[in-house]
Amino acid sequence: MNRKMVFFTTGQIILLEAALLLFPLLVSAVYGEACVTAFAFTIFLCLVTGLCLTVFLRPKNRVIYAKEGFLIVTLSWLGLSLLGALPFYFSGEIPSYIDAFFETVSGFTTTGASILSDVEVLSRGLLFWRSFTHWIGGMGVLVLMMAIVPSSGSSGRSIHIMRAEMPGPVVGKLVPRVRETAKILYIIYIVMTAVMVGLLCLGGMPLFESLLHAFATTGTGGFGIKADSIAGYSPYLQWVITVFMLLCGVNFNLYYLLLIRSFRPVLRSSELWCYLGIIAVSTVLLTLDIRPLYDTLSASLRHAAFQVTSVITTTGYATTDYGLWPSLSKGVLFILMFIGGCAGSTAGGLKVSRIMLMFGNARRDLSRMLHPRSVGVVHIDGKKAEPSAIDSLATYLTLYFSMMLAVFLLLCLEPFDFETNFSAAVSCFNNVGPGFAAVGPASSYAAYSGFSKLVLCAAMLLGRLEIIPLVLAVSPSTWTKK
Amino acid sequence: MNRKMVFFTTGQIILLEAALLLFPLLVSAVYGEACVTAFAFTIFLCLVTGLCLTVFLRPKNRVIYAKEGFLIVTLSWLGLSLLGALPFYFSGEIPSYIDAFFETVSGFTTTGASILSDVEVLSRGLLFWRSFTHWIGGMGVLVLMMAIVPSSGSSGRSIHIMRAEMPGPVVGKLVPRVRETAKILYIIYIVMTAVMVGLLCLGGMPLFESLLHAFATTGTGGFGIKADSIAGYSPYLQWVITVFMLLCGVNFNLYYLLLIRSFRPVLRSSELWCYLGIIAVSTVLLTLDIRPLYDTLSASLRHAAFQVTSVITTTGYATTDYGLWPSLSKGVLFILMFIGGCAGSTAGGLKVSRIMLMFGNARRDLSRMLHPRSVGVVHIDGKKAEPSAIDSLATYLTLYFSMMLAVFLLLCLEPFDFETNFSAAVSCFNNVGPGFAAVGPASSYAAYSGFSKLVLCAAMLLGRLEIIPLVLAVSPSTWTKK
Repeated sequence: MNRKMVFFTTGQIILLEAALLLFPLLVSAVYGEACVTAFAFTIFLCLVTGLCLTVFLRPKNRVIYAKEGFLIVTLSWLGLSLLGALPFYFSGEIPSYIDAFFETVSGFTTTGASILSDVEVLSRGLLFWRSFTHWIGGMGVLVLMMAIVPSSGSSGRSIHIMRAEMPGPVVGKLVPRVRETAKILYIIYIVMTAVMVGLLCLGGMPLFESLLHAFATTGTGGFGIKADSIAGYSPYLQWVITVFMLLCGVNFNLYYLLLIRSFRPVLRSSELWCYLGIIAVSTVLLTLDIRPLYDTLSASLRHAAFQVTSVITTTGYATTDYGLWPSLSKGVLFILMFIGGCAGSTAGGLKVSRIMLMFGNARRDLSRMLHPRSVGVVHIDGKKAEPSAIDSLATYLTLYFSMMLAVFLLLCLEPFDFETNFSAAVSCFNNVGPGFAAVGPASSYAAYSGFSKLVLCAAMLLGRLEIIPLVLAVSPSTWTKK
Repeated sequence: MNRKMVFFTTGQIILLEAALLLFPLLVSAVYGEACVTAFAFTIFLCLVTGLCLTVFLRPKNRVIYAKEGFLIVTLSWLGLSLLGALPFYFSGEIPSYIDAFFETVSGFTTTGASILSDVEVLSRGLLFWRSFTHWIGGMGVLVLMMAIVPSSGSSGRSIHIMRAEMPGPVVGKLVPRVRETAKILYIIYIVMTAVMVGLLCLGGMPLFESLLHAFATTGTGGFGIKADSIAGYSPYLQWVITVFMLLCGVNFNLYYLLLIRSFRPVLRSSELWCYLGIIAVSTVLLTLDIRPLYDTLSASLRHAAFQVTSVITTTGYATTDYGLWPSLSKGVLFILMFIGGCAGSTAGGLKVSRIMLMFGNARRDLSRMLHPRSVGVVHIDGKKAEPSAIDSLATYLTLYFSMMLAVFLLLCLEPFDFETNFSAAVSCFNNVGPGFAAVGPASSYAAYSGFSKLVLCAAMLLGRLEIIPLVLAVSPSTWTKK
């Protein structure tokens, strides 16, 4: 194993974090907040750590394989979260380091689960950093590094890292060079964020709030900056956020195809239509189900569309406490948590394309049982699905469900009820954020013990990195065998 | 497709049901109960239906393949339940036919979920029939037919039927002839039931009650005949039931191996050790967790061992209302619902061997990701796992989890809380019986609507027949293509 390269790249990521921390530092300096020193000190620590790793462990051989890709992603995300938690801790605004770590992991993994019972007391610099972590984690920090550091995207390592960090069962390159692909993705992402900021400002939301909501929406994270999440904003603003959540749950490759005027593959994307279909059906169901709770049909439609999009894209914003909705609506939202957005988007969950792969594979298997000599093919988006993606389905499902149940069992050490613990496990594992009952949208994760918070941090990282990189990183054979 | 053979075999099964109904008829005659006419009339209807099917649809060609095996099992189980519900309905003791059907499906599938709020008012004949359905469904009614009807076990059809009816990812024959295998299994089953009746009688339980409890225990069903399930019986009787539940969650093939003095494969059965290990660890955990609730350590141990064994073997008996236990104990029991007993036992759930297969396959896959050229082999019970069993894992998991979630969603049309609906779906799908909250061990399924009861019936049948036969039976291509 190319250990030097693993630590070297992790060091590069930490240096990148130092650079990214300059933004919140600037914000807190502009507003003259005390937390500016917390940022400065964190940046200093990032620089020291990052320089140590990159200077002392500079590798001669830069070639890596899948194994190193998994390790780099795991260590980078862990390092990023451990150091990214420091501003909250140093400033004293989140006095417990575990709480700060939870909030940061929740940020980078775009979960949006919070331990803050009153988010509005946080200083502006920290609020900025908190939402900014969503934006960084949404598209992926290693993808960002490839896009901006010239040497990183060219060597043999890039595709392995990209595969390990990008969500979905299959990751394709848009253009032959990985670095160009990463750049294109980030340009689309930045433009989308900028457009959203503009539309929110148009609706009367202050610039600072618009920016933070845009970060958390395009990253499908869901950290609110108000105690009532999005409930206090106008219907126009709620609709803007709904549309952008929906857009960011779509595979970003499709936007590139639109840009190069290649419309046919977009129109033929079965994943896209399936995703839109699920949202449409769920919205209609919920609108009818919650109709008696609201005065007008348009209000029920707005709340239904918002909540459905928020949960399927695993953002986790709320315009109302859906914990009080009828069983059917809660049941639909619960199932949407598992589905998640499209592959190659910033959303979590199983991903629509993986679910299509699961059912396509089941269909082929069943037809083989009836006609043993038939040779079925699983199609996705009009193309034959990669055999390797089908082969690893059973493994993915095994790990996905067993680990979710294990997280639930560990949470059961707490005295909370079944609904709280189970929905907390499902919600964090799928990077949604809020669950039901005591961890519902009107509440927070503050009541959990430090141990449970660490368990939930693991769940969030497993969900964001799609389990396998983390499992391989802790497997002894990764570290021992050549 | 050999349609005649499908209906002919279903007819044979219905005739067999007529014969089996003579036992409860006799019981109600002995006790001079009014329900004797209900049994007589049901037997008459079974005879008419069965004779019509077997006389008019007598097939010339008796060869069938996997497809017909799935259909036979599905239709037989459906016919059996539809007709088996009639005595409850005709007698007027369960006035709604849907309720009677629910109770019968719950019986045959060895679930043990009940719609009766007071079981003690039922007449003895019906109580007998209710528990007897567990016993019939436990080992499988088609297996029973093969064991007793000479022609049925010899033709080409038998192994396909056995594969479709017996639980577990792989079904092996004990001896070359399927008919002999079926006979051996039933002899072991009968002896076990008889020994259990004897031990219960020794503990002072009346013969009638002992017989019924033995039926429901060896079939791992769990219909109680007292309102408080097993809570009112002595610790000795509770321990006897614990041991027999545990024994009936073991692969019955192992008992045959013991009988022919082949001890080594039994000692080397990794499924057996894994099953016993899970029970031991869970029992210790629960004993410690519920220690403060009971006066003595032995009482906590007894309740913990009883409940753990009851749930992992998917029996569903209760010695206490474990809905009132702490979160950890409930969490462990919840996860045991998914695990279930060993393959080739009378228990439901995923089965220990399937779970071992899932993790064995995951382990191999992960090691392949690290060492792409390695050729891993999945072992189970010291033998190489069948590739077909591994290939269908993803399909099984897809259907298992998606259907369980679909059942939950349909139950959400009811106004019950999350814990009730979710645990009802999981419990019925895994053939356990009681869930938590409003469907806990101290309660019943009576409050659900007719529609929800039918949904739960489908869940119980899907769970017992391991999904695939039922899915294929309703797939149009089974019926149209040659």
